[in-house]
Amino acid sequence: MNSNGSWKDKLARRNHLGSWVSTLRTEGTRPTISFGGGLPDPASLPTEALAKSINYVLKNHSEAALQYGGTEGYEGLRELLAKKLSENGTTLKASNFVIVNGASSALAHACSLFIDPGDTVILEDPSYSGSISTIKFAEAKMVGVTMEPGGLDMEMLGKKLKELAKEKISPKFFYSIPNFHNPMGSTMSLEKRKALLEYAREYDFLIIEDETYTALRFDGNPVPSMYILDKGHRVIQIGTFSKTLAPGLRLGWVMGNEEIIEYITSRRTDMGSSPLIARAIAQFIQDGHYEPHLAKVIDIYRRKRDTLIAGLGERCANLAQWTAPEGGFFLWLNLKKDIDPQMLRQAGAEEGVSVITGSNFYLNGGGKDKVRMAFSYVSQNQIEEGVVRVDKVLRRLLSSSKSK
Amino acid sequence: MNSNGSWKDKLARRNHLGSWVSTLRTEGTRPTISFGGGLPDPASLPTEALAKSINYVLKNHSEAALQYGGTEGYEGLRELLAKKLSENGTTLKASNFVIVNGASSALAHACSLFIDPGDTVILEDPSYSGSISTIKFAEAKMVGVTMEPGGLDMEMLGKKLKELAKEKISPKFFYSIPNFHNPMGSTMSLEKRKALLEYAREYDFLIIEDETYTALRFDGNPVPSMYILDKGHRVIQIGTFSKTLAPGLRLGWVMGNEEIIEYITSRRTDMGSSPLIARAIAQFIQDGHYEPHLAKVIDIYRRKRDTLIAGLGERCANLAQWTAPEGGFFLWLNLKKDIDPQMLRQAGAEEGVSVITGSNFYLNGGGKDKVRMAFSYVSQNQIEEGVVRVDKVLRRLLSSSKSK
Repeated sequence: MNSNGSWKDKLARRNHLGSWVSTLRTEGTRPTISFGGGLPDPASLPTEALAKSINYVLKNHSEAALQYGGTEGYEGLRELLAKKLSENGTTLKASNFVIVNGASSALAHACSLFIDPGDTVILEDPSYSGSISTIKFAEAKMVGVTMEPGGLDMEMLGKKLKELAKEKISPKFFYSIPNFHNPMGSTMSLEKRKALLEYAREYDFLIIEDETYTALRFDGNPVPSMYILDKGHRVIQIGTFSKTLAPGLRLGWVMGNEEIIEYITSRRTDMGSSPLIARAIAQFIQDGHYEPHLAKVIDIYRRKRDTLIAGLGERCANLAQWTAPEGGFFLWLNLKKDIDPQMLRQAGAEEGVSVITGSNFYLNGGGKDKVRMAFSYVSQNQIEEGVVRVDKVLRRLLSSSKSK
Repeated sequence: MNSNGSWKDKLARRNHLGSWVSTLRTEGTRPTISFGGGLPDPASLPTEALAKSINYVLKNHSEAALQYGGTEGYEGLRELLAKKLSENGTTLKASNFVIVNGASSALAHACSLFIDPGDTVILEDPSYSGSISTIKFAEAKMVGVTMEPGGLDMEMLGKKLKELAKEKISPKFFYSIPNFHNPMGSTMSLEKRKALLEYAREYDFLIIEDETYTALRFDGNPVPSMYILDKGHRVIQIGTFSKTLAPGLRLGWVMGNEEIIEYITSRRTDMGSSPLIARAIAQFIQDGHYEPHLAKVIDIYRRKRDTLIAGLGERCANLAQWTAPEGGFFLWLNLKKDIDPQMLRQAGAEEGVSVITGSNFYLNGGGKDKVRMAFSYVSQNQIEEGVVRVDKVLRRLLSSSKSK
């Protein structure tokens, strides 16, 4: 491997990977209405209850909260997670969890365990830009499988797996966001989950199941997770409190079979996540704040989705198509034609609205006829005004761009 | 690289690296007095003032504290760090810092930037076991340079660099703990710092300067940091609030030139450290709690060191030698003979005292005639009683072991 070359060569090589700077804001002439980042509703952040939980922990368990807490994370929280996430007859234990700093950090741990530079990872195409960056920075080769309106193109997956097998390449894992997909908002059917698991067994790869938005279901019935369907043999689940409670807590988890969790725990050298935060969240749950808060924000996000869809239906029905997501933060617009991402940013800034161009989420180009709109952060009033602005932006760009 | 082989091979290969489970406690028949881990004094953890700061932040900046805070970390805290760490005419700016989850996490970030499997890193031998694990898990080849009672063996360093150069190997960095070394307690002289920098320039490697314990100086004068001596050209400093405030906050920093900081910030995909914690610490500092707290704990640790050294002087002078550290958490015992680490653990458990055997800190074996004693966590009374127990343990083991 690269023992030669100085550290400067290394920086230069890594610089070729590009940087990942999330663009949540654009500059404009008036306050921008942001359908950009996947941020929770600011008014509903459970500030007071969290303050109470933190104060309780600092008062009653100050030493445990302020010393090191171990690389596995606070057992009380892992037990609560095990209870909460057990379903369909599968009983999880605290030892199926390791507490980490959010889902992004969970994915980074999985990459550091399984990826050497040059290894192959399969992803849904499009997928979440932050996760693409994490996998790219691990210097994996990324193979994308098209997400169609009906979900993952299983035929294409089969073909790609066969091609890789011919080249004697074992993909290390498949990274999937099965529920309320980022950016598409879609949910993977039970049938496709089973088919994906079949492929994973046949070609011997892992599945990383990103459950960041799973708890935020507005309607419809939950689909069993691949972890549960597989009984955790070759599925690693990652989750977070960032969307349900608050991103600033930086707390999430990896859920896996005990062998995997033991590997992560024993090879983790960051001295663990904050026991203060982990204990505060456990206290928050134990005091009965979690379920009512979840019900409240689910209601908020459902109404926001409905307002957005109603507004778009009124104005933009001849510019774009969309499918209502059953949960999560995102609506995915399919435009009638390609538009230029740079011009979308520019026009959005001029009109005072920001959305994210689909091209941010594709592995190999494409997505110029897609737009991701997060309805989570904006208020109801902003959504109504925002749709007016989005309509203006799209009309301007679509009338000036070429037909598909 | 290794595109072949399944994920199981990868786990198996990585398993060969061993695990890192810090052994802070041993089982015994009576409550153990622990000179093991580098934990702060529990009674002095600034629980109330931290609770106040957290409450203030949640009350006045709740949205900023609970949403994502950016990968560079809270600017207010970076500004305070820049002010606090500027010295000798070098003016630091907020842009010289990125906030991370403790010094261990800071080192992991540096490794992920500069280390590919097979790259070479030079370390002081002995060095901190956690850092050795971090560098080992990055699959670097580690070259140790002996730490003598007078500090780093510069002649040996020169020789090893020449040997590496002959094999056309550029070491990526030298990892150093110049102040109150872990485990040795020693401080690198100005002369040796300058010589190390000379070598870094001649052989074109970076220096990672771990300042975990630097703020905790009991006596003597501070020695200028290598970062300051070098004006940050090829020195990256890492620091933490774990030893001065509380490990459970999981907050530290990387300090470097703007190019390095920009690299870390833009390639970081964990969505940053907790803005709630970063803002609470900034508030704690701004409210004037930090300097008095630091003075208080410095006084506590100085007295603990003195009590330990007085006790050992009374009882163990004919069993071991030591040099009083001018700061930090650790005293390093040089025993008259080798002892068996397993038997040290066993005898300690029986007597109800735990210390850490020197062999945990060496790269290539050795250290069986050394013991690290952390005087930070134990109370004054425990130190007095602990020395009685350590004396018994050492007498037992040294009388039964072979002479050097």
